[in-house]
Amino acid sequence: MIKAGIIGSTGYAGAELVRLLMGHKETEIVWYGSRSYIDKKYADVYRNMFEIVEDVCRDDNVAELAKEADVIFTATPQGFCAGLMSEEILSQAKVIDLSADFRIKDVAVYEKWYGMEHKSPQFIPEAVYGLCEINREQIRGTRLLANPGCYPTCSTLSIYPALKEGLIDANTLIIDAKSGTSGAGRGAKVDNLYCEVNENIKAYGVASHRHTPEIEEQLSYAAGETVTLNFTPHLVPMNRGILITAYASLKKNVSAADVKAVYDSYYKKEKFVRVLDAGVCPQTRWVEGSNYVDVGFVMDARTNRLIMMGAMDNLVKGAAGQAVQNMNLMFGLPEDMGLDLVPVFP
Amino acid sequence: MIKAGIIGSTGYAGAELVRLLMGHKETEIVWYGSRSYIDKKYADVYRNMFEIVEDVCRDDNVAELAKEADVIFTATPQGFCAGLMSEEILSQAKVIDLSADFRIKDVAVYEKWYGMEHKSPQFIPEAVYGLCEINREQIRGTRLLANPGCYPTCSTLSIYPALKEGLIDANTLIIDAKSGTSGAGRGAKVDNLYCEVNENIKAYGVASHRHTPEIEEQLSYAAGETVTLNFTPHLVPMNRGILITAYASLKKNVSAADVKAVYDSYYKKEKFVRVLDAGVCPQTRWVEGSNYVDVGFVMDARTNRLIMMGAMDNLVKGAAGQAVQNMNLMFGLPEDMGLDLVPVFP
Amino acid sequence: MIKAGIIGSTGYAGAELVRLLMGHKETEIVWYGSRSYIDKKYADVYRNMFEIVEDVCRDDNVAELAKEADVIFTATPQGFCAGLMSEEILSQAKVIDLSADFRIKDVAVYEKWYGMEHKSPQFIPEAVYGLCEINREQIRGTRLLANPGCYPTCSTLSIYPALKEGLIDANTLIIDAKSGTSGAGRGAKVDNLYCEVNENIKAYGVASHRHTPEIEEQLSYAAGETVTLNFTPHLVPMNRGILITAYASLKKNVSAADVKAVYDSYYKKEKFVRVLDAGVCPQTRWVEGSNYVDVGFVMDARTNRLIMMGAMDNLVKGAAGQAVQNMNLMFGLPEDMGLDLVPVFP
Amino acid sequence: MIKAGIIGSTGYAGAELVRLLMGHKETEIVWYGSRSYIDKKYADVYRNMFEIVEDVCRDDNVAELAKEADVIFTATPQGFCAGLMSEEILSQAKVIDLSADFRIKDVAVYEKWYGMEHKSPQFIPEAVYGLCEINREQIRGTRLLANPGCYPTCSTLSIYPALKEGLIDANTLIIDAKSGTSGAGRGAKVDNLYCEVNENIKAYGVASHRHTPEIEEQLSYAAGETVTLNFTPHLVPMNRGILITAYASLKKNVSAADVKAVYDSYYKKEKFVRVLDAGVCPQTRWVEGSNYVDVGFVMDARTNRLIMMGAMDNLVKGAAGQAVQNMNLMFGLPEDMGLDLVPVFP
Repeated sequence: MIKAGIIGSTGYAGAELVRLLMGHKETEIVWYGSRSYIDKKYADVYRNMFEIVEDVCRDDNVAELAKEADVIFTATPQGFCAGLMSEEILSQAKVIDLSADFRIKDVAVYEKWYGMEHKSPQFIPEAVYGLCEINREQIRGTRLLANPGCYPTCSTLSIYPALKEGLIDANTLIIDAKSGTSGAGRGAKVDNLYCEVNENIKAYGVASHRHTPEIEEQLSYAAGETVTLNFTPHLVPMNRGILITAYASLKKNVSAADVKAVYDSYYKKEKFVRVLDAGVCPQTRWVEGSNYVDVGFVMDARTNRLIMMGAMDNLVKGAAGQAVQNMNLMFGLPEDMGLDLVPVFP
Repeated sequence: MIKAGIIGSTGYAGAELVRLLMGHKETEIVWYGSRSYIDKKYADVYRNMFEIVEDVCRDDNVAELAKEADVIFTATPQGFCAGLMSEEILSQAKVIDLSADFRIKDVAVYEKWYGMEHKSPQFIPEAVYGLCEINREQIRGTRLLANPGCYPTCSTLSIYPALKEGLIDANTLIIDAKSGTSGAGRGAKVDNLYCEVNENIKAYGVASHRHTPEIEEQLSYAAGETVTLNFTPHLVPMNRGILITAYASLKKNVSAADVKAVYDSYYKKEKFVRVLDAGVCPQTRWVEGSNYVDVGFVMDARTNRLIMMGAMDNLVKGAAGQAVQNMNLMFGLPEDMGLDLVPVFP
Repeated sequence: MIKAGIIGSTGYAGAELVRLLMGHKETEIVWYGSRSYIDKKYADVYRNMFEIVEDVCRDDNVAELAKEADVIFTATPQGFCAGLMSEEILSQAKVIDLSADFRIKDVAVYEKWYGMEHKSPQFIPEAVYGLCEINREQIRGTRLLANPGCYPTCSTLSIYPALKEGLIDANTLIIDAKSGTSGAGRGAKVDNLYCEVNENIKAYGVASHRHTPEIEEQLSYAAGETVTLNFTPHLVPMNRGILITAYASLKKNVSAADVKAVYDSYYKKEKFVRVLDAGVCPQTRWVEGSNYVDVGFVMDARTNRLIMMGAMDNLVKGAAGQAVQNMNLMFGLPEDMGLDLVPVFP
Repeated sequence: MIKAGIIGSTGYAGAELVRLLMGHKETEIVWYGSRSYIDKKYADVYRNMFEIVEDVCRDDNVAELAKEADVIFTATPQGFCAGLMSEEILSQAKVIDLSADFRIKDVAVYEKWYGMEHKSPQFIPEAVYGLCEINREQIRGTRLLANPGCYPTCSTLSIYPALKEGLIDANTLIIDAKSGTSGAGRGAKVDNLYCEVNENIKAYGVASHRHTPEIEEQLSYAAGETVTLNFTPHLVPMNRGILITAYASLKKNVSAADVKAVYDSYYKKEKFVRVLDAGVCPQTRWVEGSNYVDVGFVMDARTNRLIMMGAMDNLVKGAAGQAVQNMNLMFGLPEDMGLDLVPVFP
C-alpha cells in the first residue's frame, strides 16, 4: 500500500487527486494538506467526500510529510515546490509536482515567464517531464516528477506525431486553446464568479501565457529544432474540459490516410490516447471525468494546412489523472490502475 | 458472469447503465438494444464509448434477448415493457424495468395518469418496487423489478423516516422538485434545445406529473394511510441532478436532534443515503455521478413545519445506479458492486 | 432633466441601474459612486459601458451628492442607507433605497432578522414601500422610497390578488423560490465561483432568509391579518431570473376562470404584470432583461390547493427597473419611461 | 412609418428582428411569416412577446407581402430567397435577405459551397453586401440587400483595417471562431439539445464551413488579391455571442500604437465598432444584446504575428441588428435608429 500525501488537497486539482486515489486500490492518502483549511474536516470543504473521507486538513509540513509518505503530490502555486525541495525530502519520498516548477529545463526561461527566482535549480536536471506516452521509461526511474500542464499535455499529444514525422512546418504552428473554468482554480476572484464566466467567452494571456514555453520545449524535442509558436487560451463557460485546435502548414504531400497511419503508429497501443478517424472532431463531452485524450485532424487542401485537434479533461489527464498514471509508473504498478474511468455523459 | 441486455441503450438512462456496467466486474453486456440506431456502432452514437464498446446496436427482439441474457434492462417509454411481458420471458431472464409500467399496484391509477391501457396487468402483483433501502428483502427474491422513478426515489427517501415515525402530517405534504435536463430524455424537441433551457427555470406538469401517484403510493405505505400531496417539478439548466424540497406540518413536539436521530436510525447503515447534519442543505453538485442521495432537513419553529430536502443524481440513484443496485440484490452480489462511484466535482 | 446619483454603482443592481438610466431620456447620471473603484473609469469596471459612460467612480460622499443630485439611488449593503439618512439629505434630494433599510415598518423585526441596529428609525414611518402596482399613490408623494426586495416583489405580486380576495388560507402559504446567481452580488466568494454554481442547485437561508419578514408584512396587509409563512430560496445556475412557486389551500369554492378573473381585475391595466392563462407556467426566459412579472396559477382539485407562480428578472423588476419605475412616479413622469424593454430571448 | 414583413419570423434571427423592430419608432411589422406556425399567435410561439405582439403567424406568400410591405426581411434557409426573387417583388418592396443567397458574387462559388443551384443569379450583381461600416454608400441606394453572415461580420470587421493597410500577410490568415448556440437555429436536432451542448466545446465544419468563401471574398477586396484562409468555427455552451481570434504574420515593422492608430482611423467615427486598447481582449459578455462589435489585438514580437480579436452578439450585429442598420440606411433614417441598445450584463 502506497502512502500518499497531498499538498494543496483543497484546490480543484488536489480534490480530483483525492477522488481518483479513493478508487486506487494500492494507495492510501495519509496527509490532506491545505494551508487554508488547517484542522477543518476535509469533507466539510468538499462535501462530495462526506462519509468517504474522515480526515482533517493539515498544514504544509513537508519535512514531516516526507517521513510519513511514500509519495508526495504538490498541487500548489508556482514556486512552492521549488522552495521546499531538498535532497532530504527526495531521499525519503518520491515527489510528483503538479506545478510548473520542474517542467522547464532552462531555468532562465522559467524565471522569465514565471517572473520569479527558481529556488532549487539543482534538481531540475534530474526531474522527468511526466508525459507518460512520450517519456514512459524515464518516468519509471525518477524520484522527482514534473507533472505536465493541462494545455501542454493536450497540445503536445495532439501535435507530436505530425511534427516528429516531419509532416508539418514547426514555424507555422498556431495553437488556439479553449478551457473550462476549473483550470482557473478555486481562488475567490471576481473574474471567476459565475455571472462573469457564464454566457461569455474570451481569450486571455494572449502571447504571454506561461504554458507557452513548456509547449515549445516539448515540441522542440519532437521537431529536433527550436519551435516558437503562438498559443492562445480561451475561457469557456463549462466546468471541465480542454480543446485545442492547432494549425500548421504541411511539409509533405500526404493523404488523410497517411496522417491517420502516423498517429496510429504512435498511439495504437496507448490506452489513454484515442485517435479519431480523419475528419471526426474531438469534443470535450466525450472525455469528461476520464483520463482519455481524443485526438483528431482535418486536412485542408485549399490552404495546405493540417488542423490538429485534441480534447481532454483538464483535471484528469491534464492534472490528477496523469499524476496517478505517473505514480503507477514510478511504483511499478499497472499504468492504468485507478484510471479505468469511463467518460461521464451527459 | 451475468449476461445483461439493455433495451433502450441509447437513451440517457440506458447510456448511463452502459457506463456503470462497464465498471461492474461480474456483468457483461450482450445486447445493446436501440430501435433508432439498429446496426450502428454504439460508440458512434455515444463517442465516450469509443474504444470501450465495440458492439453495434440491435433491434428490440426481446424473445431472442431473453434467451441470451440473464437480466434484461428496459430503459424504454411507458407501455413498452408492459406490452412485451410474458411468462416465457420471465422464465428465462430477470427483468429490471426502468419505466413506470410495473411501479403502481393499482392498474386503474396507472391507466388514468399515463393515459394508456396496461397490456399485462397480471404481472403487476409480483413486481417488486425497487427502492432498495426500503424493500431490500423482497427485491432479492423477485424476477420482475420495477425500478423507481427519479423524483419518487429522491422524494420517498427524503420523507420516509419522518412520515413513518409520525413526525409529520401527511395531508400537509408539498414537494417542490428541481431536475437537470437529462431527465427530459434525448428526444429532439424544441423545448429541450440548449437555448430554450439555458438561462431559464420553469415549473412543468404542475398538479399533473405522472410521478405523483408513484410518490403517493410509496408514502402511503409509510404513513399507513392514503396520502394525497402536491408535487411540482421544475426544469433547471444543468445536465444532472435532482433536488427536492418538501414541506410538512409537524405533528409531534420534537427537536432537530430528535429528527436527526430518526433519520439516522433508518439510514445509518445505508451506504447510499447520507444524512446531513440538521440545517445543512443538500446540493446536487456533491452527489453528481454517484449513487448517493444526500438528505437533510430544517426545523421551522415559526411555522411548525419540517422542511425536508434531498439531492441525487437523476441518472444514477434515480435510474441506472439504482437499477444496478437492484441487479446486485437480485443476483446475490454485494449491493454496492460497481457502484463505488465517488461524486465528481466540479 | 433629473440629475441622478448612484451609491454602489458597481454592484450588479447598480450597474443595471446605469444600463436602464442610459435609456431614460429625462435622467442624467451625475455621480457613479463606488467605494471599491474610486477614481477608476466606470467603463473599465464594466466594459459594456465602453464609449457609453466616460465618468470615473467616486467615493460615497452623500452630503456632497445630495447637493448635486435630484435623486439618490443607494444600491448598498444593509445598514448603509440607514446610517447616513438625515433630514438635510432628504430636504435636498429624493432617496430611493435599494437595500432593506426602510422596507420593514417594525424596527424590532428589522433588527432581529438583519442582526444590526437600525441607525435612523425616525425615518421609517415616512418611507414608502415601492411596490408600484400596490402603493402607486403613496409613492408619488414620498421623498424616501424603500425599493422592494427581489423575492418580495415576485412573491407579493404573485400572491396578492388571491390573498386579498380571500381565495386562499394565509396560514397555509409556502413559497418555494428560485433565483439566478446575480442576486448573490458581485462579491468574490468561493460559493459564487462559476464551478461551484454551475451544474448545481441548492436551497439556502432555509427558514431564515431576510426577505421572509418583508414578504410576510406585505402579505399581511393583503390578508388583513398577520401572515406567517415558509419562504425557501434556491440558487439556480443562470445569471438572471427569479421564479416563485407558492402553495396555499383554497378557502373558497372557485373555478380556474374565477381565479383568472380575480387576477385580471388587479392587473389588467398594469403594464408590467402579465397574467398568463390558467395552467400556463411562467418561465424566467420570457421576461429576461425586462420589467415584466409574469404570473400564472394552477388549481389542484385533488389537494384543494392553489399553486401560484411568478417569473421576473431579479435585476430589473426585482431591483433597478422597479427603482426607475418608482423614480418616474416620484417625479411625475410616465410610469414606464425608460422601461419599454422587450424581453431578450434567447 | 415603414411597413415591414418578416419571412421566417419564428427562427431565432427572425425573433430578434421582431424584438428590435418593437423598439424602432419608424417601423411597424405588418407580416409575421412562419411556415411552421401558420395561424398561431406569435406570442404563443415566443411568450416574451405576450401582450406586446398580438398578431398571428402567416404563410410565406411573398407576392402578397410585397404589396403590403415597404421592406421584406427574409430570415430563411439558404435557397429560399433566391427561389422567390423577382423583378416584380423588388419593384414593390426593398428586400433584406438574412440568408447567404446574395452575399457571394461568384455564383459558382455559391453553388459549390452551398451544394445547390442558385435560382435567380440575375439579381446577384445588383445585390449589395450589407456590411455597413464598409459599404455604407452602396447600401443607401440598393433595393436588394445581402445581410452578412455572423462569422463574416465579426471576422471582416476585426481584420479589415490591418489587411487593407498592408500590415499583415493575407496568405497566413487563420481565423479560429467561437459561437454561442443560437447560431445553430431553433431546429429540433439532437446535437443542439441542452445536454449535448452544455459542458462541451467542439469544432465543426472544419475546412468546410460555408462562411469561409464569404469571408474570403470580403477580405480579398481589402487585400486587393485573392485571399485563401482557414476558418474554424466552434460551438460554445452559451446562448449568444461570437468571438473570433485571427492570426496573421506581420508584413511591416509596426508598433502596437501604430496598429491602434490604423484601427482608429477606420473606426473612430463608427458608433458600432469599438476599438479596444492594445492588449485588451474583447469578451462576448460586454456586447450581449447590443449592436456593438468590440475589436482588439495583441502584437507578438516572438512570432512576428498579429493576433486580432473581435466579439459580437451573433443575433444583433451578426443578424437582426445589422439588418435594421441596413434598413435605416436604405430608408434614409439615422443609422442607429432603434439600435441604441446598451449591452446587457450580466
